[in-house]
Amino acid sequence: MTHASSRPEARAPRGFADRRGRDLIAERRLVTRVSAVYERWGFEPLDTGAFEYADALGKFLPDADRPNEGVFALQDDPDEAGNGEWMALRYDLTAPLARFAAQNWETLPKPFRRYAFGPVWRNEKPGPGRFREFVQCDADTVGSDRPEADAEIIAMACEGLQAAGLAPDQAVMRVSNRKLFDGLFEAGGIEDAGQRLTALRAIDKYDRLGWEGVAALLGEGRLDESGDYTKGAQLPSPVIARIQALLATATVERFSREEVLRALSNLGGLGAAGAAALAELAAIDRALGAMKVGQDAVRFDPTIVRGLEYYTGAVFEAELLLETTDEKGRAVRFGSIGGGGRYDDLVARFTGERLPATGFSFGVSRLASALRAAGRGAADAVRGPVVVIVFSEADMQHYLDAVAELRGAGIAAELYLGRAGMKAQMKYADRRGAPAAVILGGDEIAAGQVTIKDLHAGRALAAGIADNEAWKAERPGQLTVSRGELVAVVRRIADAPHTDA
Amino acid sequence: MTHASSRPEARAPRGFADRRGRDLIAERRLVTRVSAVYERWGFEPLDTGAFEYADALGKFLPDADRPNEGVFALQDDPDEAGNGEWMALRYDLTAPLARFAAQNWETLPKPFRRYAFGPVWRNEKPGPGRFREFVQCDADTVGSDRPEADAEIIAMACEGLQAAGLAPDQAVMRVSNRKLFDGLFEAGGIEDAGQRLTALRAIDKYDRLGWEGVAALLGEGRLDESGDYTKGAQLPSPVIARIQALLATATVERFSREEVLRALSNLGGLGAAGAAALAELAAIDRALGAMKVGQDAVRFDPTIVRGLEYYTGAVFEAELLLETTDEKGRAVRFGSIGGGGRYDDLVARFTGERLPATGFSFGVSRLASALRAAGRGAADAVRGPVVVIVFSEADMQHYLDAVAELRGAGIAAELYLGRAGMKAQMKYADRRGAPAAVILGGDEIAAGQVTIKDLHAGRALAAGIADNEAWKAERPGQLTVSRGELVAVVRRIADAPHTDA
Repeated sequence: MTHASSRPEARAPRGFADRRGRDLIAERRLVTRVSAVYERWGFEPLDTGAFEYADALGKFLPDADRPNEGVFALQDDPDEAGNGEWMALRYDLTAPLARFAAQNWETLPKPFRRYAFGPVWRNEKPGPGRFREFVQCDADTVGSDRPEADAEIIAMACEGLQAAGLAPDQAVMRVSNRKLFDGLFEAGGIEDAGQRLTALRAIDKYDRLGWEGVAALLGEGRLDESGDYTKGAQLPSPVIARIQALLATATVERFSREEVLRALSNLGGLGAAGAAALAELAAIDRALGAMKVGQDAVRFDPTIVRGLEYYTGAVFEAELLLETTDEKGRAVRFGSIGGGGRYDDLVARFTGERLPATGFSFGVSRLASALRAAGRGAADAVRGPVVVIVFSEADMQHYLDAVAELRGAGIAAELYLGRAGMKAQMKYADRRGAPAAVILGGDEIAAGQVTIKDLHAGRALAAGIADNEAWKAERPGQLTVSRGELVAVVRRIADAPHTDA
Repeated sequence: MTHASSRPEARAPRGFADRRGRDLIAERRLVTRVSAVYERWGFEPLDTGAFEYADALGKFLPDADRPNEGVFALQDDPDEAGNGEWMALRYDLTAPLARFAAQNWETLPKPFRRYAFGPVWRNEKPGPGRFREFVQCDADTVGSDRPEADAEIIAMACEGLQAAGLAPDQAVMRVSNRKLFDGLFEAGGIEDAGQRLTALRAIDKYDRLGWEGVAALLGEGRLDESGDYTKGAQLPSPVIARIQALLATATVERFSREEVLRALSNLGGLGAAGAAALAELAAIDRALGAMKVGQDAVRFDPTIVRGLEYYTGAVFEAELLLETTDEKGRAVRFGSIGGGGRYDDLVARFTGERLPATGFSFGVSRLASALRAAGRGAADAVRGPVVVIVFSEADMQHYLDAVAELRGAGIAAELYLGRAGMKAQMKYADRRGAPAAVILGGDEIAAGQVTIKDLHAGRALAAGIADNEAWKAERPGQLTVSRGELVAVVRRIADAPHTDA
């Protein structure tokens, strides 16, 4: 222990997580399954770099109260002309897509469908369960103004969630259209873009705060439980009343998409923008019907507005339909597991020409949590490799042969490569989640035999889960067989159902 | 076209690439196949964050001539105590592993085998084909000092390269041990660590510069073709002569691993460190033999030293055995496609206690290039989705049904969602690499039929590749069949061999 003071502390930066083993495997499997759906729907993969120039990235994050506006930014080293431009790590996958589409529009197939997954970074204050890096998975169509493009994204997202493991009745996609509010604001004389955005972000909290909380944020402002005061959108009360009526069109859950459309139509007073919203939603409904997407899977719900500034039309949000419990055991709604919408102006930032676009995005870790909450993670339990125990340097060839045989049969297997004794090796096999340990002691080798420990059965026996004689006779925990039976016996053990999951 | 001056230019930051379509699919497939091998060998996946604290990351890059020492660094926002620590994006996957292992050693299975893949960042001067972000794939064993752990990494890396698509005779793994040079330097009175490192980095260029160039860099220095002068390691000439003799032990390609060991042993004068190197290499040879890894797959070669500072023992480098041509058509050796070695001191930076470790790393894009150079990419040709053509809003239901049927049969398919006419839609299908276009015009729908264009056959016909009558009778380019035959006919076309690849 020398130079203790000059040694760095081994710790990950605040808000950055290490992920490993079965959690990571489950998340990767999720991404693989969703990717397969997206490719089957004709979406091609795209990977852009982690950095974008700051001006290309734009400022669309809802919480821009941090230095650098919530992104990780740095100034590039000077180029030949001596200029060092500001770059920032992407905070989502949509802004880089807009840049890519603008840059390559001439040569892309049009419309351009792409999906992408990868880390995004938010320079937010880290906290428990709140990370500054997380993996998103997005699918977008650029260059189609057809409502069928929105419907396709919505239907594909539903299929993706099911491919990831959610049962059809465990999630619902709620859909609305920002133009409903454009029409309402216009009719109410609300012209200021900032005021409109503040109002939309207040409505976005409907799920969490209910109408009273939203009404306060639409008006003067709101004092929350922690004593923090948030200034409101300062809307006049007739406009707030109109918003209440609009949101109320979907409060009765039994409304079909068609019924919500009729209620919105009866409401009236939403102007030309509102009429456009209704026509788009009607076309989305028709396309969803043609794609056999049921009323339970996709609902129309005007409380959905989404927090990001850039949405211009249809907006959608996938919600987990399960009550789960928080760390204090209280029942909580899991809430949103993904969302998206139409953003027709994002590419125009670069080109000056409007390029319609629509997409859906979800956080991979969040969906994985949702799957666990929905009880859909257990079936995917991941097992460790079979561990071959090491006794003597002289018998290394025998151990290596056994490992190679198992791998050759497609069974994950490894040789213990530490220098500890039998007991520590069994503990190691247990930590690895090994289904079995393979023992080739001098006696076994001399007799042309091998001893195989069924570690799952061993754990079940130890835990008293399986203490009846019949069970023990069937899975005795340990057996010595002829060396030629190694693969067959290990496979039978590895394929047996877990009793200790 | 308004506010042109305020519009950002759509361009990716210098040295950052967009990757899409079949290149990206090929790279992902490569990673998936290698990962499957690594998991079968008992290596578990690990994902660490993009950032590490700068002190944890350390400074081990060979080219530290840039500001920030070749990394992308930024100062974190102040924490509660008002301190903002410096963080940097990881430049490899080894330094984060060392940090992770030191942080979690108590609870990890020991030895700890992990594999990882993901982007790494180098703040280098970007140039053609030289990127500042690229994906690496690593496998490492931490906590085993056994030469079998090195042999396992080497054998597994060979299997991984083959799983990725290389034939056994297309690559070779060259293996040596840094301790050979430790012994040589010690015997020659070279004590200075910086001088030793400069010498090792000179030897690392043997492949590219040959002995004359290396000798200059070991001595006074070297003037390269561009006129740049590089100061040498200033070694005395007897030491340089010893190095020449050491490197010469492997210049005859027919030497087996055992023959190289014998030549090294006969050389003598490598002290205690050299003897340790020979014992480790002999144990690696025995383990490779036990694992049936042939003399052609893994060779011992003292010219292998690797450029990174942290290696302490065995070092290895995978080389593509193909002459390829550069952009000017000249024959060039492709060279290294990955490497690694033993680094027993990296974790001790944190804990003060030595923790032996060994691993192998390759760049995913570089290996994908090697596969293309080796002619092993074509078999993986990726096809686009089948495109269903859109004529009339009124028939949308028919188009959507056809797309859903194809997808339901596992065939990637999409509806054209732009607003252009038939000709533009066919061009679109071509750009998408679609095997077929599905045409449901009013006549087809009325007659209960569907027209299917075989786009590959069409391209072959257009190119005159297939102009004989028998071929045209078999693949006529376009055929109208009963609507019920849609899936069967499309599948036959999509599964037919490419003639235009």
